[in-house]
Amino acid sequence: MTTFNDQDAVLFANAAFYRAVESLNGDLLEEILARHEPVRVVHPGWPLISGRANVKASWERIFDNAGVMQFTIVDPEAHLDGDFAWVTCTEKLTSVQSGRVVEGLVATTNLFRRENGDWRIAHHHGSPVM
Amino acid sequence: MTTFNDQDAVLFANAAFYRAVESLNGDLLEEILARHEPVRVVHPGWPLISGRANVKASWERIFDNAGVMQFTIVDPEAHLDGDFAWVTCTEKLTSVQSGRVVEGLVATTNLFRRENGDWRIAHHHGSPVM
Repeated sequence: MTTFNDQDAVLFANAAFYRAVESLNGDLLEEILARHEPVRVVHPGWPLISGRANVKASWERIFDNAGVMQFTIVDPEAHLDGDFAWVTCTEKLTSVQSGRVVEGLVATTNLFRRENGDWRIAHHHGSPVM
Repeated sequence: MTTFNDQDAVLFANAAFYRAVESLNGDLLEEILARHEPVRVVHPGWPLISGRANVKASWERIFDNAGVMQFTIVDPEAHLDGDFAWVTCTEKLTSVQSGRVVEGLVATTNLFRRENGDWRIAHHHGSPVM
C-alpha cells in the first residue's frame, strides 16, 4: 500500500505551483501563495521582491510578457522540518516571449509553509544556469 | 536590556557565513556548513550542487580563482520556524578575479538549520541581479 506522506504533499504543492505558473493566471497563482507574510520571490536576474501583493504583481508582469511558459521539473527533492519545507529542483523552461521561443535552465529553491494543513509557497528563488 | 534572541543568532550565523567566504579558506567555510545532509548550494550562474563535500569543493574552486571577495550585506532578514530559518539579503560583492576588480549585486536566499544548538548553513542560493 502506498501512503501519501508529508514529503509527497510538499512535492505535490511544488508541482501545483508550476501548473499555476503555466496557467499564466495571477489569480490561480495567488491561490497557492502563502497566506501569511513573509512571502517573497527572486525571479531569474531580478532583485528580491517582498510582500504577497508585490509577488503576485511580479508574476502578472511576467505572464503579460509570456505567450507560453512550459516547465519540465528535474530532480525535485523536498526536505521537511515541522511546518516548513524546502524544495530544490531544476526547471527546464520553454517560453514564448515577444513571439520568440526561449529555452533555458533555471536552478530553483522553493520554500513552503504549512498553513492550516495546506502547504503553500512562501518563497521562490530561480536563477539562470549559464 | 538587549537580549540575544533566536533571530539575532540566525543573523549572526549569516554574518559569520560571509566572513568565512571572505577568508577564502575552505576549512573555515566548512566550520559553518551544516553537519548533516542535505547541504546544497547554487552559486550565481551555476547549477545546483548537492552534498557537503561537493559544496565545500565548489567554494574552494571559487576561492582559488578569487584574489579578494568583499561583501556588504544589505537588508538581511531572518525568518524562523523551529530549528529551521531562512534569510534573504542582497550581497554587494567586490571581488578580484584574474587581476580585475569585479562589482556586482547578488540576490540571496540562505537556509540555516539548528544542529546541537548552533545555527549552520544548509543551503546558499545566490543569483546575479541584472
